[in-house]
Amino acid sequence: MKALVLEEKGKLSLRDFDIPGTMGPRDVRIKTHTVGICGSDVHYYTHGKIGHFVVKEPMVLGHEAAGTVVACGDEVSDLKLGDRVCMEPGIPDTDSRASKLGIYNVDPAVRFWATPPVHGCLTSEVIHPASFTYKLPESVSFAEGAMVEPFAIGMQAALRARIQPGDIGVVSGAGPIGMMVALAALAGGCAKVIVTDLAQPKLDIIGAYDGIDTVNIRDKSAAQSVAEATDGWGADIVFECSGAAPAVLGMHELARPGGAIVLVGMPVDPVPVDIVGLQAKELRLETVFRYANVYDRAIALMASGKVDLRPLVSGTIPFEDSIAGFDRAVEARETDVKLQIRMPD
Amino acid sequence: MKALVLEEKGKLSLRDFDIPGTMGPRDVRIKTHTVGICGSDVHYYTHGKIGHFVVKEPMVLGHEAAGTVVACGDEVSDLKLGDRVCMEPGIPDTDSRASKLGIYNVDPAVRFWATPPVHGCLTSEVIHPASFTYKLPESVSFAEGAMVEPFAIGMQAALRARIQPGDIGVVSGAGPIGMMVALAALAGGCAKVIVTDLAQPKLDIIGAYDGIDTVNIRDKSAAQSVAEATDGWGADIVFECSGAAPAVLGMHELARPGGAIVLVGMPVDPVPVDIVGLQAKELRLETVFRYANVYDRAIALMASGKVDLRPLVSGTIPFEDSIAGFDRAVEARETDVKLQIRMPD
Amino acid sequence: MKALVLEEKGKLSLRDFDIPGTMGPRDVRIKTHTVGICGSDVHYYTHGKIGHFVVKEPMVLGHEAAGTVVACGDEVSDLKLGDRVCMEPGIPDTDSRASKLGIYNVDPAVRFWATPPVHGCLTSEVIHPASFTYKLPESVSFAEGAMVEPFAIGMQAALRARIQPGDIGVVSGAGPIGMMVALAALAGGCAKVIVTDLAQPKLDIIGAYDGIDTVNIRDKSAAQSVAEATDGWGADIVFECSGAAPAVLGMHELARPGGAIVLVGMPVDPVPVDIVGLQAKELRLETVFRYANVYDRAIALMASGKVDLRPLVSGTIPFEDSIAGFDRAVEARETDVKLQIRMPD
Amino acid sequence: MKALVLEEKGKLSLRDFDIPGTMGPRDVRIKTHTVGICGSDVHYYTHGKIGHFVVKEPMVLGHEAAGTVVACGDEVSDLKLGDRVCMEPGIPDTDSRASKLGIYNVDPAVRFWATPPVHGCLTSEVIHPASFTYKLPESVSFAEGAMVEPFAIGMQAALRARIQPGDIGVVSGAGPIGMMVALAALAGGCAKVIVTDLAQPKLDIIGAYDGIDTVNIRDKSAAQSVAEATDGWGADIVFECSGAAPAVLGMHELARPGGAIVLVGMPVDPVPVDIVGLQAKELRLETVFRYANVYDRAIALMASGKVDLRPLVSGTIPFEDSIAGFDRAVEARETDVKLQIRMPD
Repeated sequence: MKALVLEEKGKLSLRDFDIPGTMGPRDVRIKTHTVGICGSDVHYYTHGKIGHFVVKEPMVLGHEAAGTVVACGDEVSDLKLGDRVCMEPGIPDTDSRASKLGIYNVDPAVRFWATPPVHGCLTSEVIHPASFTYKLPESVSFAEGAMVEPFAIGMQAALRARIQPGDIGVVSGAGPIGMMVALAALAGGCAKVIVTDLAQPKLDIIGAYDGIDTVNIRDKSAAQSVAEATDGWGADIVFECSGAAPAVLGMHELARPGGAIVLVGMPVDPVPVDIVGLQAKELRLETVFRYANVYDRAIALMASGKVDLRPLVSGTIPFEDSIAGFDRAVEARETDVKLQIRMPD
Repeated sequence: MKALVLEEKGKLSLRDFDIPGTMGPRDVRIKTHTVGICGSDVHYYTHGKIGHFVVKEPMVLGHEAAGTVVACGDEVSDLKLGDRVCMEPGIPDTDSRASKLGIYNVDPAVRFWATPPVHGCLTSEVIHPASFTYKLPESVSFAEGAMVEPFAIGMQAALRARIQPGDIGVVSGAGPIGMMVALAALAGGCAKVIVTDLAQPKLDIIGAYDGIDTVNIRDKSAAQSVAEATDGWGADIVFECSGAAPAVLGMHELARPGGAIVLVGMPVDPVPVDIVGLQAKELRLETVFRYANVYDRAIALMASGKVDLRPLVSGTIPFEDSIAGFDRAVEARETDVKLQIRMPD
Repeated sequence: MKALVLEEKGKLSLRDFDIPGTMGPRDVRIKTHTVGICGSDVHYYTHGKIGHFVVKEPMVLGHEAAGTVVACGDEVSDLKLGDRVCMEPGIPDTDSRASKLGIYNVDPAVRFWATPPVHGCLTSEVIHPASFTYKLPESVSFAEGAMVEPFAIGMQAALRARIQPGDIGVVSGAGPIGMMVALAALAGGCAKVIVTDLAQPKLDIIGAYDGIDTVNIRDKSAAQSVAEATDGWGADIVFECSGAAPAVLGMHELARPGGAIVLVGMPVDPVPVDIVGLQAKELRLETVFRYANVYDRAIALMASGKVDLRPLVSGTIPFEDSIAGFDRAVEARETDVKLQIRMPD
Repeated sequence: MKALVLEEKGKLSLRDFDIPGTMGPRDVRIKTHTVGICGSDVHYYTHGKIGHFVVKEPMVLGHEAAGTVVACGDEVSDLKLGDRVCMEPGIPDTDSRASKLGIYNVDPAVRFWATPPVHGCLTSEVIHPASFTYKLPESVSFAEGAMVEPFAIGMQAALRARIQPGDIGVVSGAGPIGMMVALAALAGGCAKVIVTDLAQPKLDIIGAYDGIDTVNIRDKSAAQSVAEATDGWGADIVFECSGAAPAVLGMHELARPGGAIVLVGMPVDPVPVDIVGLQAKELRLETVFRYANVYDRAIALMASGKVDLRPLVSGTIPFEDSIAGFDRAVEARETDVKLQIRMPD
C-alpha cells in the first residue's frame, strides 16, 4: 500500500509501506477517503519530534481521517460494509484504571496514530477497532468527517468548561484549534464567543460566523474589550488557546468572579501564572488533553447543522501531491485553516 | 393608576387601583410597556387559587413584563432613566439561607408578582428592586423582553439539566413551557431536541425551528421514536414538561444509561414513578422551581440571535381589551402560544 | 470443585460443580476464602428469580468474596501469587459505549456473579479479570474484604449524592444496605447521619457508630425528627433505602431547599411520588445501580480506619454448613446484618 | 470600649476606641469572648499592608471571633440574647451579582473585618448582621468557635476540591492553613491525607491526627512519597498550601490522571507553572478566596466530633497582654499553630 512516510526529520516520501498488524474480531478495515494535515504532523516533519516523542524510524503520518468500511471482524455488529465513517485516532487499553473511569484519553498506554512509534493513516487502508470508529450520517461529507478529529479538541474544551446556557465565552488565539474551540463553545451553549488574536486574516475567517465577535489585540487589549462587552463583569469562560506567555499571565483579567479558564494552548516551557489574580476571583481552571467520548457529540452537532466546519477547509490536495501539501502547511499561510489530502479512489 | 384586577374567582375588572408600596434607595420605578399572559394568571382567574395560594382579596395580575425606567433610587448605579428593561418577578429575602447559597428561588420568603397576596404588574407603573431589573439591549424589543420570564423557566430547566455540548434532548409536552424548554436546551448546547405531544398544531409551531424534530405520539410512541433517533441508546436529557401520568411513568424509557430527566411539568397529585426503571439506567433527576440567576443569560441568548422567541407571540392585545385577552387565553386555542398585553403609552 | 448450587427455587446443594471457563492472559485465579450472603442470593433461593432474571438451570450462588491469588495470566502485572484480594463481581464489555463513558455498571452486557445465567463464587476457586480484582492491604482482613461488595453500594450512593463536606445526611431504612450507605455517607463527608427505621434492634446496631443518630419512626416521624435536628431547614442529602411507599411519598419533606435525594431502595412496583413537593424545593434525585469505580475507594477507607465494618458481620459459617447459613439468612433475624461463609482452607 | 488598635505599621496600642456604626433591625450586638490571631493581623502589624490594602489610619485588628449575643435588632428571629455565637467576618452587598449567585466571597464590595478601612473585632463588643452570625452548639467552646474562621478556609478548599468519598489527598505545606485544609479534607471525605513540609515540628502536630500521614520533604521528595503511597497512580486531590515556587512547579507530579489541584497558598508574585504537565494528566485546578456558605458546615463537623481543632490552639493570652501575644506571633515559633486572645468578661 502507498503511504506518506516521514523517513526522518525533514524528509517525506510517498511510497509503498506495509503497516504491521492483523485484524481482530472487533476491528474494521477502512478505505481512507480524506485525511487532514494537523499541526502535529507538520511539527514531526519539521522537527522530528514533539516533546519526548521522537521519530526514530520511518513513520506514516496522518490522524484526521474519514473513509469507508471495507471489512468487519466477526464480532462487529454496529458497523457494516459500505458505512461511511471517521476514526478516533487514540486507542487506550480498555482495562486500564483511566479507561475504567471514562477518561481513556489520559491512559498512559494510549496508542495514537502518527505518534512515534505508532503509524498514522495517510495510506489506502487502515485497521481500527470498531468501538473507535463512528458512522457518518448522510448529511456529513467525508471532508467534514475528517474534520471531526480537530473539532473534537474544541469539543473537549467545551465539555471541560462546563458551559452553562447563555455563558459569554472568550477564546484567546485564533489558530485552527482556537477556531474549533470557539465553534464548539458556541454550539455548546455560549450566547456569544469573543475571539482575540493579532492576525487579522484569521479573525476575519472566524468572525464570519454568527455569534462570534473578534478583537484584534493590536487595536485594543483583550481585557478592555471583554470588560466593555460584559459591563465590566468579565467572561464566564476563558479559553486560553494561544499558549502565549503574556496571555497566560493576564488571563484572569478576562474572567468574571467565579468564572472558569480552560487551558488549551500548550506553552513549551513553564510560564508565569498570577495565582493570586486567579484566587481573587476564585476561578476554576481546566486543562485539556486530546479528548474522550466526544466523537458522537461532534458528529451530532455537525449533522444537525449547528456546526458548519466546511468554511475552514482551506484546500484539498490529491494524495499524489501530499508532499507539496505538507510544504504548503509548513508555510503556515494566515488564510489557511485546514488542508486536507484526498486519498485515491 | 389603571390596573387589571382579579376581583375574585372568575371576575376581572380594569379599574383604578393603587398598589401599596414606597420606593427605596435601591429601587427603580418602571413604566410598563408589554405584559404577557401566563397560564398561572389564567388559572387564578378561572380557579381563584393555585395550590395553597388563594385569592382572598382583589389582586392585580401579571408577572411577565418589560418597560422603561422612569425613576431611580439614590443608590441605583447600574440603571438610568430611559433604560428599557424587563423585570424578574420574584423577590427573595436576600439575607436568607437560600439566598446566601445562590438559590434564591427556593427561599420560602420570596414575594412573587401576582401570587397572593402580592400584586402583579398589569398596571401603568411598578416599583422594583434594581437588582432584579435587567436592561434590554437595543436588539431586544419590549415584546421579547416580556418573553424573558417564561423563557427563564426553560433556561432554568436547561441549567439544571447540565447539558453537555452535543447532547440529544427530548421534551415531552409542547405547551408554552415545553417550547421554552426546547429552545433553551437547543441554544444551551443540545445538538438536537425532539419534542413530543398529541397536539399537531403545537408541534407544527415548535417544529418550525431548526434543530427541533417533532413526534406526534398519536402516530408513534415517544419511546420508539427516541430509540430510532438514537440507535437504541436513548436521549441524554429528557425534559418532562407534560405533567401527564403516563409520560412520567415511562420517562426512563426515553433516556440513555447514565442520562438525566428534568421534571418541569407539575402533576397536581402524586403520580406513579417506576423507580427501578430509573435505577436500571442510573438516571439523575432534576426538578425545577421557577428560576434563579438566569435573566442575564436569557437576554444574552436573545440579543445574540441564538434564540428567537418572536414567532411564539401569538397575539398582542391593547390594555383596554385585556379582559377579552384573558378570555381568549381561557379558550386555550392550540395555535396560541403566548398572548401579550400592550400597555398604554 | 465443591460449590453451593441453587438447583432450583428452594433447593440448595453442596456438591461438585465445574464452572465452565478458561483463564485468559489478563485473568487471575483466586482461591476463595470468605463469601458473604447477600439478600439477592437469598431471594434467588426463596423465589427462584429477581425481576426478569430467572434461575432456569442449576446456578452457583455468591458474589461477595475475598481470597488469595493462586495463578496469574501472562499479561497480569499488578497482581502476583499470594496476593490477598477481593473481587468486583460484575464484568462489563469494556468496549461498550457505557464502559467508554466510565459508567460500566449500566452496560447492558455486564455479566454479574450469581445472576442467571452467570455462576457465582461460592466455590473453591474462581477465574476473574485482574482489572476487577483488588489487592487488600495488610490491615484489611478477608472478612472485611468480603464486605467490600455490599459496602460498594453504599459508596456508590455516597458518590452519586455529591456530598459536600459537613452535609447532614438522612438514611431511611436500616437494612444492611441502609447501614452501608450511612457509613459511606459519614466517611464520605457528612457531619452527621440520621438513620430512621421501625426496627429498634437494627437502629441499635448502626446507632452504635459515632456520628450516627437514630430515629425510630414508631416514636416520632422522620420529617419531624429531621426538622428538629436541622432547625427546620432539612437535610442536605436524603438516602431513600427503605423502598417503602410511604417513605418515598414523603421523602421531600426531609430535604432542605436545594438538597438531594438518592434513591437506593427498590420498590417492586411503581410508587406514587409527589413531584410538586420535590419541585417546591428544587431537589435533585439520583439513582443507584450497583457501582462503578468504587472498590479502590472502599478499600482505602477501610484501610485507613475511617470505616470499620467488622461490627456488621453477625456470623461466620463454615462452608460445609452453608445451607444452614442460608436458612438462617431466610429467617432474617433483626440482629443479623451480614452472614459470611468461610471457605475451606 | 477598649480595643487593640494598629496605630500604624509596627505600632499597636490597647486603648479606648469607638468603632463607628449603628445597629440595624437585622443586626445583633455581640460581647466578644475569644479572638484568634491570624497571619494577616500579624502581617498588617509588621508590614502595614497586604497587597493594595494599606493601613492609613488606626485600625482595630482581629477577625476570628466568638462571643455572646447581648442585643438583637427588631427583625432578628434566629438568634436571641445569651446565644453563644461565632461571626463570619466578611459582609457582602447582598444585592450584588456575585451574592445573587451564591459566591458572595468574591463580591468586590465585601467589607471584611480588619482589612483597611474596616475595623476588626479585638474589642469588647461588635455589631454584626444576624445572617452572618452563627449559633454555637453546647459542645463547641468559645475557643473552638473562634477557630471556625481559619477552619472555614480549609472547608472552602475541601468544597472547591469536590472530594469524592475515599479520595487520597495531599497537602503541600503544614502551616496553620495547610493544617486546616488537611483536617477539612479528611472530614470531608478523603480516606487519607498526606501532609508535606520541611518543618518537622509542624508535621508532628498535624501527624498526630488519625488518617494523616506526613512526609518531611528534606528526607524524600513529595512526588516520590505520593507515588509510593498510591502505587504510582497519584493523589486524587492536591492542596497546594505552601505558596512556594518549587512546589507549584511540580504540583502536577503529585496528582493522578484526571485529578485536581486546589491552589490555597498565595505566592506574592507570579510563579512558573508547567501547563503542559497539568494538561498531560488533564488536571482540574481550583482556587480559593476566603469562603462562602461554610460556617454552618464547619460548626456541624466540630459539633459532631468529626473535627477536633482544640489541639491546634497553642496558647491563650489575656486581652491585656495582647500586644505581647502579637509579638509572640511575630516570632512564628514552629510549635505555635494558633494563638488566641481571651477578652475580659
